[in-house]
Amino acid sequence: MMARLVMKFGGTSVADIRHIRNVARHVRREVAAGNQVAVVVSAMAGTTNQLIAWAREAATLHDPREYDTVVASGEQITSGLLAIALQSLGVNARSWQGWQIPIRTDDGHGAARIVDIPGDALIARIAGGEVAVVAGFQGVASDSRIATLGRGGSDTSAVALAAAIRADRCDIYTDVDGVYTTDPRIVHRARRLSRISYEEMLEMASLGAKVLQVRSVELAMVHGVKVFVRSSFDDPDAPPPIDGVTPGTLICDEDEIVEKKIVSGIAYSKDEAEISLRRVADKPGVAAAVFGPLAADNINVDMIVQNISEDGTLTDLTFTVPTADYERARAVLDAAKAGIGFQVLQGSTDIAKVSVIGIGMRSHAGVAADCFAALAAKGINIRAITTSEIKISVLIDAPHTELAVRTLHSLYGLDDN
Amino acid sequence: MMARLVMKFGGTSVADIRHIRNVARHVRREVAAGNQVAVVVSAMAGTTNQLIAWAREAATLHDPREYDTVVASGEQITSGLLAIALQSLGVNARSWQGWQIPIRTDDGHGAARIVDIPGDALIARIAGGEVAVVAGFQGVASDSRIATLGRGGSDTSAVALAAAIRADRCDIYTDVDGVYTTDPRIVHRARRLSRISYEEMLEMASLGAKVLQVRSVELAMVHGVKVFVRSSFDDPDAPPPIDGVTPGTLICDEDEIVEKKIVSGIAYSKDEAEISLRRVADKPGVAAAVFGPLAADNINVDMIVQNISEDGTLTDLTFTVPTADYERARAVLDAAKAGIGFQVLQGSTDIAKVSVIGIGMRSHAGVAADCFAALAAKGINIRAITTSEIKISVLIDAPHTELAVRTLHSLYGLDDN
Repeated sequence: MMARLVMKFGGTSVADIRHIRNVARHVRREVAAGNQVAVVVSAMAGTTNQLIAWAREAATLHDPREYDTVVASGEQITSGLLAIALQSLGVNARSWQGWQIPIRTDDGHGAARIVDIPGDALIARIAGGEVAVVAGFQGVASDSRIATLGRGGSDTSAVALAAAIRADRCDIYTDVDGVYTTDPRIVHRARRLSRISYEEMLEMASLGAKVLQVRSVELAMVHGVKVFVRSSFDDPDAPPPIDGVTPGTLICDEDEIVEKKIVSGIAYSKDEAEISLRRVADKPGVAAAVFGPLAADNINVDMIVQNISEDGTLTDLTFTVPTADYERARAVLDAAKAGIGFQVLQGSTDIAKVSVIGIGMRSHAGVAADCFAALAAKGINIRAITTSEIKISVLIDAPHTELAVRTLHSLYGLDDN
Repeated sequence: MMARLVMKFGGTSVADIRHIRNVARHVRREVAAGNQVAVVVSAMAGTTNQLIAWAREAATLHDPREYDTVVASGEQITSGLLAIALQSLGVNARSWQGWQIPIRTDDGHGAARIVDIPGDALIARIAGGEVAVVAGFQGVASDSRIATLGRGGSDTSAVALAAAIRADRCDIYTDVDGVYTTDPRIVHRARRLSRISYEEMLEMASLGAKVLQVRSVELAMVHGVKVFVRSSFDDPDAPPPIDGVTPGTLICDEDEIVEKKIVSGIAYSKDEAEISLRRVADKPGVAAAVFGPLAADNINVDMIVQNISEDGTLTDLTFTVPTADYERARAVLDAAKAGIGFQVLQGSTDIAKVSVIGIGMRSHAGVAADCFAALAAKGINIRAITTSEIKISVLIDAPHTELAVRTLHSLYGLDDN
């Protein structure tokens, strides 16, 4: 069945010419199957780092528009090289830079957002049998300036392009063969999910499963783009699997998931630090007094737990920040101590956040209670808890991370048999 | 006195960030002097070769449009880095890619010709105090494709830009401090010329003085752009010379050269090979029979000497081709032997062309006779001669090159005292 596809290949998949040739064979296979194809490529692994190093060496504080001009050339190079490799396999192809399509962005250079991609001209060319090889990570902002989308932006390019050309599917080729119930390095019995909903994937992505950039998942959800995560290291010319099912994970609307599990996966993150303010005056406006200065300093606060004080005068406030911002956050709070009115600031970077994710939780009670009981049975102390409709997160001591993940993975029946 | 300048820096002048910072100081000096500045930059030395190597590795025969997309990114990188370095010195600057200006070219990808550069918008921005940092070597062809101008194309970019923005001067910063009467490695008493006419420079450039690309000199002559060749390795912040004369060579109209010499320089080239066809039937159309097949194979023929045959039936034909094309030329001629009707093909790559160049020759007789006599006195055999209005070229055995150049350099009074 003919389909219109976007195929996206990341930096490790195009690391050198040998890899780029391999990518070309993946593309040829899809073209040979009668599909209309647009490809989105990242820079060759290493190139972006070299370009960033040069920009930093030229000046510590650099104009983000010039930084983008320098860094975007990495994807320009790959797009041209892949077009050459495709042509040498007899596949009609041409490269497209962001400004040529154009992929219009806002002026948030360095982390720009895509505003518009006119798709009709590209659809016509793809339908005419010409593979479009699109430089990922880049677009064009006002005054014809080149803009980049930030780390992992090629995922976003691919999903946005898929929406623009009304693609049947956006295939993300990466160095793993899909999304797993948890990190297979920790739990050997982790299973690949054949399908996962956008909402669950968003939680997985933002909680440390590094398969897809969060923004690309949001975009896929908004535009209903089906995203298929698969490995670029499979033999590109292998015959289709006997059961007709290519190994990988489809990220889609929950309506398309027939066998709904209560819990789909266990995520964890060790990149967070905990800060507790003790004996804070419990009065209106105290939360603003704490989180205002942090926001002003661009520090993202994640889990927030405020205990109700016994006597209504003093309370404890606990929250997490990225480990990279920990020292800065402490300094900001110390400076604002008089305005907030806390007595003691305690903190730790030796903590981890473990999360249970599943859309089935909405309709099943007791999931959280089971979680807390199982962790308690293993002697794991829970420092803080936050929950959402489809997620339970607990903050624990970092040395317990692996034990907690394994315990919960078994508890919810995710272990591979 | 305020001037509008184009400053061009080649690959060795922007080889790394330290060099790029040095270039930024050259630019700052001109801005501080009240000048309006556009800068044209090449790729960092080494970058272009890496990009070419990747393109060749991807496929031996590559689409020149994709090749251009890959290779042009080298100049894009430098333009962004120099803009960053300028800003860090407090100089207002922005980078410009070929497609942003736009520098429109024809569709001769890989060696495209500039068709048009709209200058007014750029003039307004430069006049507003913003230094334009323009990526050299590139432009935009039809269908918004990136095109490159071929080897040394950044010189052409600089001169074309100077014409488009009606610059007072185009300064070419390079690794030598000007144009010399001959190669200083051969003649230690070679002198730097303070001025040279476009016509002479064209001959010098095409005969092996590798300071400037020939096409850029042609363009400068057509548009009357004054080109000043100077060193990028001078101290960029040095005070002006006591005599007010910056070391370098001005390439200009001959009317602007007050002290006209009969001979301005001696050039040589060892990159040519000689081919002689012996006993060719001397009949109409024989030259076409010889040079037609060579032209069809894209082999450039340079010096052509046809002797008049004694009896009007058989003649000898001698000409030169680039050494790189020598074997191919022999094969082409052998294949066409029946059609041409020669009896013996002789050839040699062990030859050199030495040329005496000077606009003063037009009005002075005896220059050629002096040349032949001086070479004869040194026992140097002349294999062939061609002359133009401002040039005498002799073909000699390669081992005599240095002796011939030194002899002629002294003969015409070019030695430094």
